[in-house]
Amino acid sequence: MTDSATLGLYGLGTMGSALSLNILEKGFALHVTNLRPEVVGEFQAEAAGAGLAGKLHGADSLKDMVAAMAPPRAIILMIPSGDPVDETIKKLTPLLAKGDTIIDAGNADFHVTRRRTAEVEALGFTYIGMGVSGGEDGARHGPSMMVGGSPAAWSGIRSVVESIAAKFNSEPCADHFGPDGAGHFVKTVHNGIEYADMQLIAETYGLMRNGLGRTPSEIGDVFERWNAGVLESYLVEITAKVLQATDKQSGQPAVDVIVDAAGQKGTGRWTIIEAVRLGQSANVIEAGVAARAWSSEGKARVAGSEVFDTPLETLELSDADLEAALLVGRIVSYAQGFRILNAASDEYHWSIDCARVAEVWRAGCIIRSSLLDDIASAFRGDLPEGQLIFSETFAKFIRDGFPALRRVVSVAVAGGHPVPALASALGFLDTMRAARGTADVIQAQRDFFGHHGFEHIDGRRDQHGPWWD
Amino acid sequence: MTDSATLGLYGLGTMGSALSLNILEKGFALHVTNLRPEVVGEFQAEAAGAGLAGKLHGADSLKDMVAAMAPPRAIILMIPSGDPVDETIKKLTPLLAKGDTIIDAGNADFHVTRRRTAEVEALGFTYIGMGVSGGEDGARHGPSMMVGGSPAAWSGIRSVVESIAAKFNSEPCADHFGPDGAGHFVKTVHNGIEYADMQLIAETYGLMRNGLGRTPSEIGDVFERWNAGVLESYLVEITAKVLQATDKQSGQPAVDVIVDAAGQKGTGRWTIIEAVRLGQSANVIEAGVAARAWSSEGKARVAGSEVFDTPLETLELSDADLEAALLVGRIVSYAQGFRILNAASDEYHWSIDCARVAEVWRAGCIIRSSLLDDIASAFRGDLPEGQLIFSETFAKFIRDGFPALRRVVSVAVAGGHPVPALASALGFLDTMRAARGTADVIQAQRDFFGHHGFEHIDGRRDQHGPWWD
Repeated sequence: MTDSATLGLYGLGTMGSALSLNILEKGFALHVTNLRPEVVGEFQAEAAGAGLAGKLHGADSLKDMVAAMAPPRAIILMIPSGDPVDETIKKLTPLLAKGDTIIDAGNADFHVTRRRTAEVEALGFTYIGMGVSGGEDGARHGPSMMVGGSPAAWSGIRSVVESIAAKFNSEPCADHFGPDGAGHFVKTVHNGIEYADMQLIAETYGLMRNGLGRTPSEIGDVFERWNAGVLESYLVEITAKVLQATDKQSGQPAVDVIVDAAGQKGTGRWTIIEAVRLGQSANVIEAGVAARAWSSEGKARVAGSEVFDTPLETLELSDADLEAALLVGRIVSYAQGFRILNAASDEYHWSIDCARVAEVWRAGCIIRSSLLDDIASAFRGDLPEGQLIFSETFAKFIRDGFPALRRVVSVAVAGGHPVPALASALGFLDTMRAARGTADVIQAQRDFFGHHGFEHIDGRRDQHGPWWD
Repeated sequence: MTDSATLGLYGLGTMGSALSLNILEKGFALHVTNLRPEVVGEFQAEAAGAGLAGKLHGADSLKDMVAAMAPPRAIILMIPSGDPVDETIKKLTPLLAKGDTIIDAGNADFHVTRRRTAEVEALGFTYIGMGVSGGEDGARHGPSMMVGGSPAAWSGIRSVVESIAAKFNSEPCADHFGPDGAGHFVKTVHNGIEYADMQLIAETYGLMRNGLGRTPSEIGDVFERWNAGVLESYLVEITAKVLQATDKQSGQPAVDVIVDAAGQKGTGRWTIIEAVRLGQSANVIEAGVAARAWSSEGKARVAGSEVFDTPLETLELSDADLEAALLVGRIVSYAQGFRILNAASDEYHWSIDCARVAEVWRAGCIIRSSLLDDIASAFRGDLPEGQLIFSETFAKFIRDGFPALRRVVSVAVAGGHPVPALASALGFLDTMRAARGTADVIQAQRDFFGHHGFEHIDGRRDQHGPWWD
């Protein structure tokens, strides 16, 4: 496949439609189709309305679409993850010619992407797993894109991908991070960080709401102010907006009519499962995943509120403390995400360039923030022990914010307020600055009950304690 | 296979030798062999020295052992988990007759046990996955045993298993928990709870050592006192012993010559991976797994101690506060373990009886404690929302201990001491008592950037916020 490949897209849902308009707007010809063909006409009308139908070709089925496309073809799938992707690959491959490319642009467990790559490439086609972040708006006007696949496959779609991607200082926020599942894994970890950041924000909101007695709108104004400072980011920006919004029907704050049960589609869990497999516990990301799971247990929480009914205490906390605590929590969640990426890159021989990942995340994606440019610089510079938190820039942020994070967590837990993600960030940092930890006790216990042995501080291995004499 | 099956055991390592002596002591005939056959003679001499060689038959190989055993046979494997088990099954099955049973008595990922059960049973044999807890001493004098397999397979070995098991009020601490992987999964979760409890103890030790300035021996005395109260348990008992022990060579406390890097063999990780898969985040167990992983990063922690060098503060905490905090942490780790067991039992159709699990853990195993009898009673009684923490007994423990746990975590984090497991327990409890949590903000954000929709508090689903108007 070359840059002259004919482009097709299957799946005109929210994301697929938006990405299609983006592709058309950049001047590329595009064939589209959809499982329910009536959607194709609706999309054609929408594109015509936007003056973008000139190079658009609608088809009623995958078969018709492929037949209308001159080879070599590059077909983007923008459909629900899981079985639908396998079913579509099965329907699609008999229609393709050697050199054609299938691009899965949804989320996927990277282990599955590795399997699909092997299966599709055994048939003589190329396969790309491409993470796309930025929601509907990003897909329409410039998402961040994380590509995995063979270098040849990447060079074949590179100019289109870079053209439709978000730009940061006019550089496209898209890159190829390695073979097979590398792109989908970078996207998975992106989402894991997103879970963590959203939970950190939700906890900070909770402290202002229940500890400082503020209204959602007042809290929204605080987030809006913060978005002009070190916390500048898409998630803080939209938090301000959702908190300032009013439910028209009731006149209440919009968040107050929303059931407090967060959905999840799997990427957060995939991040944690792979992290734990790789020995890379990422406790802030875990806290984000856990909080969503627990939020779905509404009936149990109501029962819990009756069993343990001590009221939440009013807190004495400054906005500056909360801002600094949130910043440090965010830094730790990025740092833990990059620890997972590094470990996975070693394990699966991907050679992921973490500086490039940070750069690709600077615009277009959900976790974009003003920190990412600094993170990219840190990865290009001197990184003691490979740890982002020890880089000059981030060590300074953390040192400056440490007292505030300590105050916030200390005061919150004393007053009965749940802050599992903020407390996890603090637990990680305090563990990683303990030259001498307390795992000696754990090793002693393991040797006592299981004769597991331990390493002596003089370097001798497989030693046993005096309890075995 | 019936109770008259001939018993064999393969693998005379620490655990295999101890279990064999236990079996012989209870009057059963036993055939044994080992990968390195020279170990067989050594074991025969050891058994003879203990007056237990009368019904012992040593063999130089699996083949010779099986040939010497009258069918039906039941062969216990006590060998390293993973590939060695598959290799042994492959060597063993051609030697067996229909109706023979293979018992894997090591730790195993229950997914693998499910696969092996299917493979072995397709050949006409029966397969049992049996978790054995209690370390060397437990195996020798009475372990806790968790059996998975067909009811027929269980009835075939039940009298031997119950005979060699630990006893609690003369009831054997062994039971059958369901088909295929059920026994190994109960053992996996047992180990997950063990990780959590050991970490909670290590944190409490750290606070006394670094926050209260006590010596290991003084702290050992505190644990010894605690072991006479509500914290009575094997792990608290041995913590006292290892802390009171002195390294003979140096005269230092024994723990001080041990490198502070904890080993792990996989069961903690398996627990977390399965928990997350099942949507059951178990953050105290996760904290135990994470702390071990981070403990292995000694060089990074030394670097961290220089980058973030604020000294640990002296703490004002009473022993009673620490005792109560540790108790609540322990209760949450048990509760989270049982949440995972319940979810897995539903998912895999095992019908695990949690009260029986608690009873089987009352003696012989590493996490045995005085709480387990109360846990069994709680599971047999009224359990609001199925949550152990809401049962009358445990809700009272938690209510009584809540202020102490808050003080401990609050003071520790303010003073720079890492308490990730204690803080996780508090985060879980405070989340589970929030009738109205803050996931409404997360749902609002998800709807804002991804048009995901949310449930309105009036019950309408798939609603969107005013930001979409």
